[in-house]
Amino acid sequence: MTELGVVRRKVKRADRAAVEALGRYGVGLMKPYMRPIYPGAMISGTAVTVLLHPGDNWMMHVAAELIEPGDIVVAAVTAESADGFFGDLLATSFKARGARGLVIDAGVRDVRALTEMGFPVWSRCVSAKGTVKSTLGSVNIPVVCAGVLVNPGDAVVADDDGVVVAPSDWAAKTADAAAAREANEGDKRAQLAAGALGLDMYKMREPLAKAGLKYID
Amino acid sequence: MTELGVVRRKVKRADRAAVEALGRYGVGLMKPYMRPIYPGAMISGTAVTVLLHPGDNWMMHVAAELIEPGDIVVAAVTAESADGFFGDLLATSFKARGARGLVIDAGVRDVRALTEMGFPVWSRCVSAKGTVKSTLGSVNIPVVCAGVLVNPGDAVVADDDGVVVAPSDWAAKTADAAAAREANEGDKRAQLAAGALGLDMYKMREPLAKAGLKYID
Amino acid sequence: MTELGVVRRKVKRADRAAVEALGRYGVGLMKPYMRPIYPGAMISGTAVTVLLHPGDNWMMHVAAELIEPGDIVVAAVTAESADGFFGDLLATSFKARGARGLVIDAGVRDVRALTEMGFPVWSRCVSAKGTVKSTLGSVNIPVVCAGVLVNPGDAVVADDDGVVVAPSDWAAKTADAAAAREANEGDKRAQLAAGALGLDMYKMREPLAKAGLKYID
Amino acid sequence: MTELGVVRRKVKRADRAAVEALGRYGVGLMKPYMRPIYPGAMISGTAVTVLLHPGDNWMMHVAAELIEPGDIVVAAVTAESADGFFGDLLATSFKARGARGLVIDAGVRDVRALTEMGFPVWSRCVSAKGTVKSTLGSVNIPVVCAGVLVNPGDAVVADDDGVVVAPSDWAAKTADAAAAREANEGDKRAQLAAGALGLDMYKMREPLAKAGLKYID
Amino acid sequence: MTELGVVRRKVKRADRAAVEALGRYGVGLMKPYMRPIYPGAMISGTAVTVLLHPGDNWMMHVAAELIEPGDIVVAAVTAESADGFFGDLLATSFKARGARGLVIDAGVRDVRALTEMGFPVWSRCVSAKGTVKSTLGSVNIPVVCAGVLVNPGDAVVADDDGVVVAPSDWAAKTADAAAAREANEGDKRAQLAAGALGLDMYKMREPLAKAGLKYID
Amino acid sequence: MTELGVVRRKVKRADRAAVEALGRYGVGLMKPYMRPIYPGAMISGTAVTVLLHPGDNWMMHVAAELIEPGDIVVAAVTAESADGFFGDLLATSFKARGARGLVIDAGVRDVRALTEMGFPVWSRCVSAKGTVKSTLGSVNIPVVCAGVLVNPGDAVVADDDGVVVAPSDWAAKTADAAAAREANEGDKRAQLAAGALGLDMYKMREPLAKAGLKYID
Repeated sequence: MTELGVVRRKVKRADRAAVEALGRYGVGLMKPYMRPIYPGAMISGTAVTVLLHPGDNWMMHVAAELIEPGDIVVAAVTAESADGFFGDLLATSFKARGARGLVIDAGVRDVRALTEMGFPVWSRCVSAKGTVKSTLGSVNIPVVCAGVLVNPGDAVVADDDGVVVAPSDWAAKTADAAAAREANEGDKRAQLAAGALGLDMYKMREPLAKAGLKYID
Repeated sequence: MTELGVVRRKVKRADRAAVEALGRYGVGLMKPYMRPIYPGAMISGTAVTVLLHPGDNWMMHVAAELIEPGDIVVAAVTAESADGFFGDLLATSFKARGARGLVIDAGVRDVRALTEMGFPVWSRCVSAKGTVKSTLGSVNIPVVCAGVLVNPGDAVVADDDGVVVAPSDWAAKTADAAAAREANEGDKRAQLAAGALGLDMYKMREPLAKAGLKYID
Repeated sequence: MTELGVVRRKVKRADRAAVEALGRYGVGLMKPYMRPIYPGAMISGTAVTVLLHPGDNWMMHVAAELIEPGDIVVAAVTAESADGFFGDLLATSFKARGARGLVIDAGVRDVRALTEMGFPVWSRCVSAKGTVKSTLGSVNIPVVCAGVLVNPGDAVVADDDGVVVAPSDWAAKTADAAAAREANEGDKRAQLAAGALGLDMYKMREPLAKAGLKYID
Repeated sequence: MTELGVVRRKVKRADRAAVEALGRYGVGLMKPYMRPIYPGAMISGTAVTVLLHPGDNWMMHVAAELIEPGDIVVAAVTAESADGFFGDLLATSFKARGARGLVIDAGVRDVRALTEMGFPVWSRCVSAKGTVKSTLGSVNIPVVCAGVLVNPGDAVVADDDGVVVAPSDWAAKTADAAAAREANEGDKRAQLAAGALGLDMYKMREPLAKAGLKYID
Repeated sequence: MTELGVVRRKVKRADRAAVEALGRYGVGLMKPYMRPIYPGAMISGTAVTVLLHPGDNWMMHVAAELIEPGDIVVAAVTAESADGFFGDLLATSFKARGARGLVIDAGVRDVRALTEMGFPVWSRCVSAKGTVKSTLGSVNIPVVCAGVLVNPGDAVVADDDGVVVAPSDWAAKTADAAAAREANEGDKRAQLAAGALGLDMYKMREPLAKAGLKYID
Repeated sequence: MTELGVVRRKVKRADRAAVEALGRYGVGLMKPYMRPIYPGAMISGTAVTVLLHPGDNWMMHVAAELIEPGDIVVAAVTAESADGFFGDLLATSFKARGARGLVIDAGVRDVRALTEMGFPVWSRCVSAKGTVKSTLGSVNIPVVCAGVLVNPGDAVVADDDGVVVAPSDWAAKTADAAAAREANEGDKRAQLAAGALGLDMYKMREPLAKAGLKYID
């Protein structure tokens, strides 16, 4: 249902500060097959979306021009594909434009070079298979990537746990809640580290018994 | 066919010494999709088993109380699930109770934090998706985890090759055999490193010829 | 349609120099599920092919004798299999014979030991499950491994991006082309790093417009 | 990023006539793992969307009340799940309310009974595993189902080729185009059946030669 | 941890009458990848268990001798395997011995012939690939098949929804409960068919509101 | 390593009679994910091979011209793809040219229409997603399809058990052997149907005992 051959130039981006804050929390909702090409990367930014045709990375070059510093490119394909749509040349270009990373529901190549240049990618797989440049897709339209709807300008946070995307207004709202929860978690963590039980800390014994839990010896 | 809502408090655990010995050998039988969240971890211990409802990690808190030092928690779900049932707060609690690690036929989250605190997990996948706490499962009943029947108190050994589980009496018996085999393997390793062929060392040439193997030039 | 129980002793190997050159370029065509057991390995060499029966690694020992320094063993199975056909003893033997690594469309075990001894393996999975030695396969016949036809003596290049196999004459031809392209890529990389756009560098704006690409604000 | 615990009562539904027309054409865009439980079913209608928690079908009962004659229920789960969320009792209820079928990115059970009552379901899998009723989801909010964004009221067409979803206005527009194309296709079909070649009919010989296609004997 | 090379001759079988009753209800717990080779089959019986080596069906012949009328053979493999372990000759033999069907966590072949002779099989896949007969497994020991522990003599019920296995005493107990539930379901089915809502029938409105469900227009 | 943009016009086809004979036996070697779109189809013929680019079915039209009566088109893609490369228009054309069916390691669409016109297809999946026509592949070159090397002119046999491909000379040789085996199997089938055991018929008792099989009561 998605229009092809469309590039939207102007995108309302999520508030940077809110996104940065959001980046500190390990939440995420894309399918778990989306894995980072090297461990330890942790980025947050705003989405430039790309819709690709299988085996064709033409639109990646169109997207490069629209990247602003702090963006993360989020690429979907119109059908499941394991080709390597992205390698070290495009990474050099994306990085020079200010991109913080790539999230792609397909394959990526030149993993060693990308690791060395510190350009993180979350992808479905790694594949050395290259692509052609002959069929149009779109840039900065809503896409579904690894099971999640992504609008251009959405907040994106990616780390070892996967990738989460949030509308920019949601991101701002969540950042405060997350900061509050994190403060609260620090306290709980200390209690648990001292041997306290979640059963007591969260007052679970009564509801468990009410639900019918039986202890036997 | 498994009873839900049951927690067994007393478990006959496998002999610690035997399990420690077993841990030095790289055998294992769970499905190969069970992978460690970071490389190099190698643990052995006795199983505390947990049966979870999809999307619900309530029983993990019940299990925490029953952990004894040297235990490994082995968690199964009543249906295939990729949620993240376990994160850094539970890991803090499990570690404080003396658990050596977690084996879970589902997802895990907070991978970076778990890696930093050195709490190893073998899991089906990584997922930031959290869970609720509303449906009962069981603790310390027999479960099937990643294709293997695990009884509470069984010996568990996990390393980069995967996860193996053995009844406690089998573990003791095997430890001796494994020690003997390992001694034997050291000798073979030296011969092979010097260029000897398994064909000669294992006397395979005759049975291969008998089975009909033809060499052509 | 493959004859079983056949071992070809003499193999016309790809020119070493050409293969070494080819090894510097990150191309590859096996299915992307073929992954290295540790990151950073990068090898090139000539194929010794093995065809195995599921759950049976007998032919690996037959192959060991035919390894020449610089070879890479490429192993296929007559049906999909996730067993661990290869561990540290065989690796010790293969290494002593001069093998540079193993590519196997099945499982491998003793991953920690293989990593420590620096013997790289590209495999479908890791599994501690051992194998028997009772059914014949073949050595140095054409095999299909992870979707690619491999003839004995073919050039094999494997790195973090996966595994590529090429006929030996193709390898020589390609090495020159690859060297030329790499020189060219270095120049492009510099331009892209300076902020140039692929859209301009590859003169894509006109063909994109012709294909119907519309920019909207 | 989806709000849970929300039910939207009023939905602007796609024009019935347009959807009916659309139903005659075999297009579709959900992931190909979505398969009908019996062959030959072919339905079109308007979406009532449901978002479920893994292992919990409570919201299906909430959705039942909002079904209008001609609707198709489209159900997503907040994480991948293979449970059987839907069986013959719910099907009896949905059918009585006027639903034409169910599209669910999860499992379904009672396949024999559903087949006998002629209530078609497109699902990820079949599973006899039942579900609980304890965690809220939502009804008639936008959901991503099998890789496709579905808004309540969207046009849904499902047949042996899979499931396609379209915004209601798109559906009307497409119905005309599809009718025109179908008329055109009938003519082409007759020519092809008489032995004409697509190469000639679509005038492909010149572009193929221009692209470099070489014929050899 | 399973002993190989063992055949248990005497098996305490589940009460036939109870199993027959159980067969009328569409429950089941094996992994949903276990599918019947043709639709509509519905059997119940008692398990003869077989443990096979990958690519080797020798034990199937050993099992044939131990089949009693009313049995269902349940076959597991020591590693994931997609070979065709079973075809029309074995089916002829199993049927002659009184077997009602086969449940196998691997592949099956001769699907057309099996369908014509009405011998139902639930399997992981269909594969024409044959097997050898050279490595021992076991018969009538506990096995894990498609994620479920199966003891010899257990009650097995298989239909279009999948395969369920229950200890024989559980089967008897469940048969009564299932009969009671079925009677109850008939009444509910009639109400739902008349347009009643599960929301009212199951008194869900209050707990939903209490859980926080909001209706919006 | 495959040359693209090449079409071979003249193909040495396998002897028709031998292939027809081969078609009566249910063997096959492609990966088991290759399934027929409707049950009961059983064809044999000679291969016209096609190599496609992901998301692009241009070469199918090139192949149509080269089909001779009795051929089966065998299509591979240069990367894993689930698009629907083939529908009712192409099927009409292929059928008019004399093709007996299609084997494609990708998706197919218009399943209902293909079923009605009796044009059988063995495919990886069903998908309504169409393709473009802009990138060259090749026709009648060797391809690897679903794990099997297929040369143009090879004998292809496909039925409910899957797809098998054989070089044309192998096909002739095998046809005789298969006829002999089938005659022999008829006799065995009768004995087994009368209750004879494979243990006795194949004289397995002694080798089993020798291998160490123990019977216990």
